[in-house]
Amino acid sequence: MPRMDRRDFVGAVSLAGLAGLTSRDGSAAAQAAEQPSAGFEIGTNVTKRLAAYIVAAKYDQLPSTVRKEAQRTLLNWMGCAVGGSRHETVDRAIAALSPFASAPQATILGRRERLDTLHSTLINGISSHVLDFDDTHLRTVIHPAGPVVPALLALAEHQPMSGREFVNAMVVGIETECRIGNAVYPAHYDRGWHITGTAGVFGAAAASGRILGLTEQQMVWALGLAAAQPVGLREMFGSMTKSFHPGRAAQNGLTAALLASKNFTSADVGIEGKSGWANVLSTTRDYKQITEKLGTTYEIAINTYKPFACGVVIHPAIDACVQLRNEHHLTADQIDRIDLRVHPLVLELTGKKTPATGLESKFSVYFAAALAIVRGSAGFNDFSDQNARDPVIVSLRDRVTTTIDPAIKEEQVRATVVLKDGRKHEKFIEHVVGSVERPMSDQDLEAKFAGLADGVLPSAQAKKLIDLCWKVETLQNAADLARAAARV
Amino acid sequence: MPRMDRRDFVGAVSLAGLAGLTSRDGSAAAQAAEQPSAGFEIGTNVTKRLAAYIVAAKYDQLPSTVRKEAQRTLLNWMGCAVGGSRHETVDRAIAALSPFASAPQATILGRRERLDTLHSTLINGISSHVLDFDDTHLRTVIHPAGPVVPALLALAEHQPMSGREFVNAMVVGIETECRIGNAVYPAHYDRGWHITGTAGVFGAAAASGRILGLTEQQMVWALGLAAAQPVGLREMFGSMTKSFHPGRAAQNGLTAALLASKNFTSADVGIEGKSGWANVLSTTRDYKQITEKLGTTYEIAINTYKPFACGVVIHPAIDACVQLRNEHHLTADQIDRIDLRVHPLVLELTGKKTPATGLESKFSVYFAAALAIVRGSAGFNDFSDQNARDPVIVSLRDRVTTTIDPAIKEEQVRATVVLKDGRKHEKFIEHVVGSVERPMSDQDLEAKFAGLADGVLPSAQAKKLIDLCWKVETLQNAADLARAAARV
Repeated sequence: MPRMDRRDFVGAVSLAGLAGLTSRDGSAAAQAAEQPSAGFEIGTNVTKRLAAYIVAAKYDQLPSTVRKEAQRTLLNWMGCAVGGSRHETVDRAIAALSPFASAPQATILGRRERLDTLHSTLINGISSHVLDFDDTHLRTVIHPAGPVVPALLALAEHQPMSGREFVNAMVVGIETECRIGNAVYPAHYDRGWHITGTAGVFGAAAASGRILGLTEQQMVWALGLAAAQPVGLREMFGSMTKSFHPGRAAQNGLTAALLASKNFTSADVGIEGKSGWANVLSTTRDYKQITEKLGTTYEIAINTYKPFACGVVIHPAIDACVQLRNEHHLTADQIDRIDLRVHPLVLELTGKKTPATGLESKFSVYFAAALAIVRGSAGFNDFSDQNARDPVIVSLRDRVTTTIDPAIKEEQVRATVVLKDGRKHEKFIEHVVGSVERPMSDQDLEAKFAGLADGVLPSAQAKKLIDLCWKVETLQNAADLARAAARV
Repeated sequence: MPRMDRRDFVGAVSLAGLAGLTSRDGSAAAQAAEQPSAGFEIGTNVTKRLAAYIVAAKYDQLPSTVRKEAQRTLLNWMGCAVGGSRHETVDRAIAALSPFASAPQATILGRRERLDTLHSTLINGISSHVLDFDDTHLRTVIHPAGPVVPALLALAEHQPMSGREFVNAMVVGIETECRIGNAVYPAHYDRGWHITGTAGVFGAAAASGRILGLTEQQMVWALGLAAAQPVGLREMFGSMTKSFHPGRAAQNGLTAALLASKNFTSADVGIEGKSGWANVLSTTRDYKQITEKLGTTYEIAINTYKPFACGVVIHPAIDACVQLRNEHHLTADQIDRIDLRVHPLVLELTGKKTPATGLESKFSVYFAAALAIVRGSAGFNDFSDQNARDPVIVSLRDRVTTTIDPAIKEEQVRATVVLKDGRKHEKFIEHVVGSVERPMSDQDLEAKFAGLADGVLPSAQAKKLIDLCWKVETLQNAADLARAAARV
């Protein structure tokens, strides 16, 4: 057996036992001693301390600001999932998998189908990310709700869960995935992982495990099972597989928690062990980001939402034009021209002058500025083929000029509207709407939701769903959320 | 937005499109130019060439030696799956997941339950690895059948599949995963990945996709979807999650193929792209291992099977003692002592002198040698608590001596049996049974199967199942294989 190496020669049976002894029972000191040569770092009880936090976290301990942000995150996510539910990506996933998921256990948001709990989790996760319009934790570029909420919604239709339990689990799940993300960002992301899917699986496991009432040991195992199932490479960006990532992460995390609930064992140091997630999937790691101030700070508090249905690079221009329009009651026919002073990246990425289709119009700062003036919005339905050809918008679009200004930051713009009567109105955007510094208002979020739900759910149903998201904490049964989002 | 970086600022909508443009449409030359600074390597059409091979591979083109080895691999795998089917690992997985897998679409080998196609794939994959007794591709330490065969068996109960189609898909799946493993071994494994789960997912996707009749483009997508779902960290060795890895890899690969069959898109360079599987999950890669001699050489031809149900380090000693016993009709009471000259690792790992239990006895070369003389075998049921206490075995065990000999290789042993009448019999094992150089015979495999099936399936059923594996190519319906392994 010339090619058999030591690892194999030890044999899988004994290797399994020995690996357990070495890496799981070895002292932290002994493990740390290996560190320099092997190029990895061992944390102390990282998985265990995180698990202890997760299983003990209670709704009553959440600050009111955190509870409020959970409502906002839920509302935003729900709109994205409903809005994305008719996308062909979702159609194809359902066509492929529904023959194997026939138990009608849980709602597919925005649709009539019901699938089993695990596949509903997958599909709703895909729907919520397919428009690239969901929430963003800017420190890590994780989209926090995508892997967490679908698992909770599907689970809510499987076993009783109050609205408060739902919110608590959601906060815990988002906390878990974002802290793990913080520990390895940016090295892990730069390596090529789609962090929403790779860290998100922990969020889904934590949230689901909290609802399932796992013990601390079981939660450790759930995190270990999650660690073994990362999802998502950045190579898949630009294909349907990108939105598959958060959905599959949600499904994997829920699966991990379900297995752990029946005492399916895993490593005790799934995150920080020598061959654990953080060492294998990242070249740097800062375990303090995971273990310090647990239960004191909350990553969901810095969650952000995209106000406009296009790349964020042109959000400042849209923001400025919507404000100018509303403050001065502008109409297109009053306007001689619009001058934009922009960051260089704006023209590099969205410099298309004459977009012919809805899709192309997302890559035109000229179109976007005109749209903002004419419609006062830049939602999902605004970037349509119809609007791309609309004579009023197109005419104004051709009167937009741009100047690259090195003094303008990426999140800024200076917009000047020159009216035909010679008056000028100027707006400087320092922090774009949707940023941590200038969050979308509750009203903004409702309007975004309405735009996404338009054409999918009747408006009365959409309004009811908005209401349910705001009052999620009062629900006796969190399953009401999912059921209210079904197409009837 | 001070913490928003360029990647996020570009925005997910535009980022997705741009990433696609950059990494998927860029020329190989342009990509290669980035290589030195970014530390990755780009292959040319690796995924595409592999996909082209997979979709075109035909049973008629397989060499007869390859067909034969497929039968042997199937027989060995089936025995392991049946033998492992009653393990508590399997019980717990079924308890956790069966509430969500209620469609009785496919057989759970060795049991009465039926679950849906995807979950049956998972469970049978777990069963087949839980005893650590399945096949090994020694070049990569991949256990090739584990991720491939469960997906095919479950699929066979979903749509018509002949025995020849089954064999062809199995060979193609094993070829795919082992070639990808060859390209990244040992760096990928050394990094901490459990290669059976991480490369195995490609094998399952290829085998399933071949059966589903994917086009070349669909197969490219299936491989991309597989790349995005690696399973398994070595940190989980020693826990139930280890056997979860091949099962989940099988399930993920089948899911990938099903999605691709409905035109769910993925990257075109999932394996070799800048942020593709080989660059993200390994520090070295040799794409020639994937693309050269496709359809000419076959990795299944060097598949190996474990003859004894313990770590391979003591296999040479068992091998020698079984041979001495059979050649000289030895009984324990004739023997004064057994002297073993062994490689140092043998005592380091299996030096337990007085094992008290079946589990401990796997870590005792003394016990194993005595067992081999007394029983003539060292199968799954031989390492029992009962045998660990058996007076005849224990007495002989205490008459085994060991000497470390630096001239003895890991796969060797020199055993000398000294009889009470003064005679000596010596056996030098150069290549242990189960190695590529001295494979287990068909009879050995049948005996191993019988031992594994003992107590799970009635012996007549076990015999029938052995027969079906040998004649798999004549089956009109490959689903007969799975159904014949169900507990009735």
